[in-house]
Amino acid sequence: MWVAAAAGQLQVDKAEEPVSGDMGRAELNLADDEQLLLAVAYVSDAQYNRNIQFETSPQAVRFYKLYNHWSTQGITYFFILVDLFLGLFEEPAVYLLPLWVTSTVEFICLLMFSVRLLHFSKVTPTKVFWKDAKNICVIVTILLTLLDMIVYLALAQNGYPAVRWSRVLRPLFCVNFTESRQLRRAFRNIRNTLPEITYVFVLFMFSVAVFSLMALKLFAKRKLSTGEGAPYFSNYLDVFFNLYVLVTTANSPDVMMPAYEVSWAYSIFFIVFVIVNTYVFMSLFLAVVYNDYKKHLKNEVRKLVYMKHRKMIEAFNILKTKNGAEFVVPHSRWRQLVKLVAADIPSSHRELLWRVLDDEQKGYLGRESFIGLADLLNIQIVQMKDRVHPLEKCMPRVYRSTISKLICRMVAHRAFRYTYDVIIIINAIFIAGDEMNPLITKAEWAFLTLYLIEILLKLYAHEPRAFFAKFQFWNWFDTIIIVAALLGTIANTALKSSGGYSSQQILDIVFILRVLRLIRIIDSFHRFRVLLNTLVNLIPTMLTYAGLLVVVYYIFAVVGMEAFKGRIHFYGVNSSNPAAAYCGNPALKGSQFAALKYCRNNFNNLPSAIVLLIELTVVNQWHVLATGFVMVTHLTARIFFVVFHIVVVIILINIFIAFVLEAFFVEHSLARSAVETAIEKKIQELGMGDSVDHPVGSLVEVMETSENDLGNSDNSNLKSRLRFRIASIRYKTVDALLQHMFEGELKPEDEIPTLEEIDNLTPDDFPQKPQTFDNVT
Amino acid sequence: MWVAAAAGQLQVDKAEEPVSGDMGRAELNLADDEQLLLAVAYVSDAQYNRNIQFETSPQAVRFYKLYNHWSTQGITYFFILVDLFLGLFEEPAVYLLPLWVTSTVEFICLLMFSVRLLHFSKVTPTKVFWKDAKNICVIVTILLTLLDMIVYLALAQNGYPAVRWSRVLRPLFCVNFTESRQLRRAFRNIRNTLPEITYVFVLFMFSVAVFSLMALKLFAKRKLSTGEGAPYFSNYLDVFFNLYVLVTTANSPDVMMPAYEVSWAYSIFFIVFVIVNTYVFMSLFLAVVYNDYKKHLKNEVRKLVYMKHRKMIEAFNILKTKNGAEFVVPHSRWRQLVKLVAADIPSSHRELLWRVLDDEQKGYLGRESFIGLADLLNIQIVQMKDRVHPLEKCMPRVYRSTISKLICRMVAHRAFRYTYDVIIIINAIFIAGDEMNPLITKAEWAFLTLYLIEILLKLYAHEPRAFFAKFQFWNWFDTIIIVAALLGTIANTALKSSGGYSSQQILDIVFILRVLRLIRIIDSFHRFRVLLNTLVNLIPTMLTYAGLLVVVYYIFAVVGMEAFKGRIHFYGVNSSNPAAAYCGNPALKGSQFAALKYCRNNFNNLPSAIVLLIELTVVNQWHVLATGFVMVTHLTARIFFVVFHIVVVIILINIFIAFVLEAFFVEHSLARSAVETAIEKKIQELGMGDSVDHPVGSLVEVMETSENDLGNSDNSNLKSRLRFRIASIRYKTVDALLQHMFEGELKPEDEIPTLEEIDNLTPDDFPQKPQTFDNVT
Repeated sequence: MWVAAAAGQLQVDKAEEPVSGDMGRAELNLADDEQLLLAVAYVSDAQYNRNIQFETSPQAVRFYKLYNHWSTQGITYFFILVDLFLGLFEEPAVYLLPLWVTSTVEFICLLMFSVRLLHFSKVTPTKVFWKDAKNICVIVTILLTLLDMIVYLALAQNGYPAVRWSRVLRPLFCVNFTESRQLRRAFRNIRNTLPEITYVFVLFMFSVAVFSLMALKLFAKRKLSTGEGAPYFSNYLDVFFNLYVLVTTANSPDVMMPAYEVSWAYSIFFIVFVIVNTYVFMSLFLAVVYNDYKKHLKNEVRKLVYMKHRKMIEAFNILKTKNGAEFVVPHSRWRQLVKLVAADIPSSHRELLWRVLDDEQKGYLGRESFIGLADLLNIQIVQMKDRVHPLEKCMPRVYRSTISKLICRMVAHRAFRYTYDVIIIINAIFIAGDEMNPLITKAEWAFLTLYLIEILLKLYAHEPRAFFAKFQFWNWFDTIIIVAALLGTIANTALKSSGGYSSQQILDIVFILRVLRLIRIIDSFHRFRVLLNTLVNLIPTMLTYAGLLVVVYYIFAVVGMEAFKGRIHFYGVNSSNPAAAYCGNPALKGSQFAALKYCRNNFNNLPSAIVLLIELTVVNQWHVLATGFVMVTHLTARIFFVVFHIVVVIILINIFIAFVLEAFFVEHSLARSAVETAIEKKIQELGMGDSVDHPVGSLVEVMETSENDLGNSDNSNLKSRLRFRIASIRYKTVDALLQHMFEGELKPEDEIPTLEEIDNLTPDDFPQKPQTFDNVT
Repeated sequence: MWVAAAAGQLQVDKAEEPVSGDMGRAELNLADDEQLLLAVAYVSDAQYNRNIQFETSPQAVRFYKLYNHWSTQGITYFFILVDLFLGLFEEPAVYLLPLWVTSTVEFICLLMFSVRLLHFSKVTPTKVFWKDAKNICVIVTILLTLLDMIVYLALAQNGYPAVRWSRVLRPLFCVNFTESRQLRRAFRNIRNTLPEITYVFVLFMFSVAVFSLMALKLFAKRKLSTGEGAPYFSNYLDVFFNLYVLVTTANSPDVMMPAYEVSWAYSIFFIVFVIVNTYVFMSLFLAVVYNDYKKHLKNEVRKLVYMKHRKMIEAFNILKTKNGAEFVVPHSRWRQLVKLVAADIPSSHRELLWRVLDDEQKGYLGRESFIGLADLLNIQIVQMKDRVHPLEKCMPRVYRSTISKLICRMVAHRAFRYTYDVIIIINAIFIAGDEMNPLITKAEWAFLTLYLIEILLKLYAHEPRAFFAKFQFWNWFDTIIIVAALLGTIANTALKSSGGYSSQQILDIVFILRVLRLIRIIDSFHRFRVLLNTLVNLIPTMLTYAGLLVVVYYIFAVVGMEAFKGRIHFYGVNSSNPAAAYCGNPALKGSQFAALKYCRNNFNNLPSAIVLLIELTVVNQWHVLATGFVMVTHLTARIFFVVFHIVVVIILINIFIAFVLEAFFVEHSLARSAVETAIEKKIQELGMGDSVDHPVGSLVEVMETSENDLGNSDNSNLKSRLRFRIASIRYKTVDALLQHMFEGELKPEDEIPTLEEIDNLTPDDFPQKPQTFDNVT
């Protein structure tokens, strides 16, 4: 499809033949297990959506396996974190370490990064390595950091003032190592969206500029004064800044009041301004960002899917043997492969996968079936054994008695849940009460006991390993919260009775745990559970998004710390120091910054800087903060705050909203992928099924269904007391949903582009299908 | 399509036969022109998307025509406005009129509304009239208002305190008269969206409640105090209110500061709160609102299209005559109809429409072709005659001389436009300067002269009537602004030189005009022109939206005025009255409201109330305003402000954003409708074409193309010097675009439901087509 669009001509399907000369030789010369290792590398890449070109020599493949091993990846992440957290111990520091300590640690980090890069250079062809922007970026960053360290040490040793400017570059390590694919994609998405935004942004700035000129003409000659007595709208730059702040609504209605007091008619100017710039333009920003976000997201998804197919085809070409007219992969070869790719899945599970792929039980796989393996490996299949309750094993007579069965039935009954819902609500009232009241303290013990009894009863009725299975979110949640609260309360009481001393930290945590308990009530309402699931689905992608914010915040924090450190002091809550009234800087005397007691909002260490940046992200009062820092430095400091606003609030927050919208809509429009349906069908066929429709996390239903139809499986080669369930239907990222969607529309005859072609795909390479009335966004 | 979905069974196409028994009789008995009038009523309804069931008796049809006449509609609108503006003259008033004056005016308004309703009752069948909720609503509102007036007059006459509560009902007249279809649709859309929002809202409130409980437990016992010295987070309701305000970001970071000063760790609580409630929940609100908005908008569009087709079928059935096996409408009959439906279009234009419909020149129209008329009538076709420039007529020799032609070429040249762009930029710099400077005053005259010369030159080069044609936006814009600025400047100079007095109002307007001139520079950049067109397209629907806001604001303003009038006083800008420091209400002493000088923000008259409500819509500092009014009344006053926030900010603003998003996306995905293409094709076929692709508003290009190919039309029955152009391609509402889209997908064999069925259609009556990867939102 894409080739026809891009080049308008037919191509021979090269995938059926060895892709390159190298590969051809490899196929002939390599020993069998070396071939296998290469195939494993391809399949594993496809499974995890990795996009790395590696050399196909046995040596390189082994290196590549090590490169992707969790331990080497973990070490890299660890040193990236260490490098970032160094900011806490360098000037301006939370806890200042000697220069030689931080320098040594940073040097070790750089060394580790170099080793990692060296490792990568052994894996990938030299030409590819030097063409890759991220490798160059890492090398340059390492060199610059080293240079900066040497210069700084030399200057500092001799008592000269010096700036560690290379600290700004540290987040680049986050982005540019191959592990951070998601993060890089997010950045690429933003970069691609920028050109479109720029036009809207320029028009928006022009609009603000024109309004500023009008405001200047209208109000400057009136010689009004602001609430603080400063001249009102007296010079163009001030007017522009004030109106820009008004777009963010942070100084509304204060900025309008002096003019409004003079005449009602002037309010019209401000109202028109807000409608045009805040409502219309900001919505337009969102529309443009959302539109581009969607477009580029889809392109990325297409690339990922093509990449996956391409890698699987490479693997197939290595493993295939001729069977009559067609090339196939026999069962034995496939089993060897899967054993190496996913060593941790049990053999029964592996056999299930084979059954799904080899639907007609031919004993070998064709190319199309083989490609399906990558998706299959990504689906979480929970293997559930119909386990006997431990108590039943120890004392079968007691556990099978009528009373015991009654208890089990009671726990499974609806009324049991309702009773506890009522208890939670009563608990909420008690929590709101004064905890110094001895009655309430006692009630807390009572509630804790009640919750403990609930958990014990459930454990009595259900098999413990099933109760604490994966994805049994609420069971885990309950147990952890109750046990932690219990431990905290006991610890607190012990401390209190022993020394009369009660730890505030422990108490705080206990209080939070108590309140968190109340959340469980949501689970009782179906509608809310569905909404909550939608929210939970957002979390994985939101973490990528958080990574992106960390990078941006870190850079701004470092720049802010260099520019503003030590300018504003915080003297503690009840300081008697007279300087506390103006944050230790006379320039702030009489300023709004000092009057609002914002001294704690400073750039004097990394955590403070991050909190301050978050306050700026929330937007309100950002102009007061900005003006405060302008007062203690220079007017140009405004640039820092305006740039931060544009980057974080106008671009990043809009992309965040776009992402939530997209997630919500995709979630709404999709149920289940074709692969999942295939597996499920097979599971049911084999009689090892378990209803998949019950909501994940609702233990009672899971247990009921698994008790109902004990497997009378007629399949001898799979153990009859085994049972499978697809675990993650409801917890799926937007990305995965879109990938499945695109895969579903990919026709077998569609040409898969080569790796290099895939890299260069743009949204324009795909013909835009006309939108229909039903599907128009 | 829809029938199959709704009932799952086949229906006979009833449209070919008379729809009801009434109609059948009508066809036999009515005189020819009475039949025609009925058909005209149907076609006219279809053209304007009216949805009124009317009696088909000749008497009723004539009444119906009068009912839809612009004059009777205009009178209704006028009295609705009068009724609303009465708020300015009633206690609390901007300018208080005696009670008997306002009462008499209001009584007249009510009388007019009753007459209008009576008129409507003569038009529509009695059963339909009494089934229609909006008629009942108007009757009840009139009766309640009368009752309230009587009670109020009686009480006021005897000196008792009384409240004119029925004023809250006034905006209902806006909504419930048949004219306000758009407004009613907007309200229906909101009402339909409410159930979905409610679930998210409850979950959101639960989240805030849980966080509030945590905050209470964490901070109450610490006995902290806020910036103003009040106890910090000391009781649950206060905590809840403060955290609700934090969701709106209005009290960030102040609400966090006391805790943050104690420990850095407490900031985590607030950061988590803001992420969950402000970012995630507010985005979710937008997603839910947008999703529902889309769904219901599409349903409305489907209904409109069905309604249009149904009405056209009725008209066809009245006019049809048998021609062989099929029913048709002959040309003569069609011409009579169009003459009555659209009396103002010239005959040449009418012939063009006939040619488009009767594509094969058969001399009659089938049903499908006849239905097309409604859309055709809605397309703005500009008829352009190749007029000779008046100067060419008066003095042909001079106008055709080489110098004159050179001037014309110069004006048409790109460099001419660039020169004036540069002049505008220089002008901008001069405007920013101090207008007291005599140099700048003189420069202003120079610029005015330059702009005048530009307009005169253009008028010299182009035919004046073409220059000031419809949709030549920038020409109109330029001329009006320049002439107004010229008049203003002259008036101001005259006033100044005569009495030394310069009118501030005139000056203000002149300044604004000068600055507005700068906007024209946008037109020089293609990218910005496109963006601007998108924005302009939003205006029509935004006006509906504005109507909706007027209704909501008016209700809140009236309630606010009754509750808070006279509680807060504003003493003028430089009042020496000591009470000015606390807005004349001792309860406000030391409050933030007084400190920020917010006294002007009060409910003491309608304009002030509206401005205050707009400030609340912008959100910032709304808690300060709310707290101020709570101080002068009672804690329950908070409810007013929170309800306003929920209704306007959470619901209305999100719907506004949804509407901008939808508009942007539909705009992006659509070019031109099928009807427009048909007309255009016909125009070209007839050789009366004019390139339609040139941007509307760019005069130069229009003139160039119309000079190039002078019509060598071989069509004798249409004047050869006539030329047509579709005017409104780029200016189109989302609604119209969606309608065209749906119409394009409507197949001829699709069953059109009857009027009553159309009324009851819901989004669920249409099968949701599966979303594809390309079209997923």
